[in-house]
Amino acid sequence: MSYLDKIRQCNRYDLSHFKPLQIDQQRIGWVKHSFAEALKPWPAVFKVTENQVALAIASDDNASDFEAGSQALGEINRHLVDAGMIKHTHGEQYPVKTLFEQPARLLIDRAAAPYYGIRAWGQHLNGYVKKNHRIYIWVATRSKTKGTFPGKLDNLVAGGLPYGITLNNNIAKECREEASVPDELIHRLYPVGAISYCVEIDDGLKPDIMFCYDLELPESFIPVCQDGEVERFDLLPIEEVAQIVRDTDRFKQNCNLVIIDFLIRHGHIRPEQEGYLELVRGLRQPFDFFDAI
Amino acid sequence: MSYLDKIRQCNRYDLSHFKPLQIDQQRIGWVKHSFAEALKPWPAVFKVTENQVALAIASDDNASDFEAGSQALGEINRHLVDAGMIKHTHGEQYPVKTLFEQPARLLIDRAAAPYYGIRAWGQHLNGYVKKNHRIYIWVATRSKTKGTFPGKLDNLVAGGLPYGITLNNNIAKECREEASVPDELIHRLYPVGAISYCVEIDDGLKPDIMFCYDLELPESFIPVCQDGEVERFDLLPIEEVAQIVRDTDRFKQNCNLVIIDFLIRHGHIRPEQEGYLELVRGLRQPFDFFDAI
Repeated sequence: MSYLDKIRQCNRYDLSHFKPLQIDQQRIGWVKHSFAEALKPWPAVFKVTENQVALAIASDDNASDFEAGSQALGEINRHLVDAGMIKHTHGEQYPVKTLFEQPARLLIDRAAAPYYGIRAWGQHLNGYVKKNHRIYIWVATRSKTKGTFPGKLDNLVAGGLPYGITLNNNIAKECREEASVPDELIHRLYPVGAISYCVEIDDGLKPDIMFCYDLELPESFIPVCQDGEVERFDLLPIEEVAQIVRDTDRFKQNCNLVIIDFLIRHGHIRPEQEGYLELVRGLRQPFDFFDAI
Repeated sequence: MSYLDKIRQCNRYDLSHFKPLQIDQQRIGWVKHSFAEALKPWPAVFKVTENQVALAIASDDNASDFEAGSQALGEINRHLVDAGMIKHTHGEQYPVKTLFEQPARLLIDRAAAPYYGIRAWGQHLNGYVKKNHRIYIWVATRSKTKGTFPGKLDNLVAGGLPYGITLNNNIAKECREEASVPDELIHRLYPVGAISYCVEIDDGLKPDIMFCYDLELPESFIPVCQDGEVERFDLLPIEEVAQIVRDTDRFKQNCNLVIIDFLIRHGHIRPEQEGYLELVRGLRQPFDFFDAI
């Protein structure tokens, strides 16, 4: 296995398995053919045709459409959970939009978003320590009882970005909840870039964006999980983390990308390495399949 | 003006102005139609047709072809300088290839490379100082007598990568020559990524790659130019450098991209900024126009 394989794992999809999901002729998501069939009982909301699924709500930025549309979508999703077409809902609301700076057209339950191929935004933080000019990275092990990716390795702090909270407030909240990072250290974290990827899963498509952050921590800081999502934290030499990413599937797949980006930015993956440019570019996949028709 | 405008400045080209330059059916460069006409007197070397220019030398990795081909190309370029079709030669040899890890098919004079649309690799280093948690960036002003971009602002150290020298040795050499960086500081620089761009110029095409490096310097270090290429160095607050990049054309165009990358990686350009993802992606343009036919 190679770093590039890890990027490819997160960039596998076949759009022929999907119909585009449109609002006002704008492509805003992708729906598997079987899921499109399951939307046919609601023709006032979803116009399912051979070539697309048109979402007939939220047809402008009108606030009542936003409310009513989000509510209608939520109700349908609850029916689809009962019918076994959606595994579960999450409770957190995600904005429906394709560009971060756009206003949300609707809200959708976080767990339902991939069924509609709606883009989600997340924030991932690499916490690291410098000792004697060597870099050590904090690695989380996800709880074995977690619904998604139990037991997999993870970044020190990572989370989705729900609707209605700023990037700064959300990453600070995640730092507190997931790793008990005190406020004086939270103030030191800073954004370092973004990663885009698109992966087909059994139930849908994840054309997602991760905003990445670095936080250099003092040796004295020991992360403690507050919310039960993490089983343990380990501070590992950068070489060991790199080897785990490159040679194993122990990390949650998208976390591999966040670490590869860290390894590039901190000079651990060097330009002499074969395929360096492919790695650099592979972390920023084009996402224009939302706009084209 | 905006950061994105600065990326666009370095990514303007119209391939209809060019014919592909091929070796063994592999697209290895792009030649302006007028320049292709100027190559017709050497039909044993250049097969100029309606749709392409085929380079009939270096047809395999054979060492004698490499030598003979490079020599033939060099002689033709000297004729073209005499004829006024190429402004001047540089003396440094660049490898002819499209991927960094490929062996060179031929060598070409650095100043001639853009006429053939041959990819060039460079190395750019941002030297910076941290004072009271604020970042200051060293900015070079190019000599007014320099042949290219006289008087423009530049990164602390930047240079093309000639044939036959490693990345590590070349950046160390440039650090010594351009800024008198002592070896104990050179050891601290590290690679942080790469930027790809493609820009059409009057005489050709530059589909180039810049490997980027960071070097945190102590306050006590003052750069001194050894080779006369830089007129002065100034240590400016990151905010001021950002403003110069965003609002003026004072920097040499491709240096703007190196600084935008620095601003993103060091948290100065933040994801809340409109078009953040476009900036992140814009620094890594696809370069597959070499392989496709």
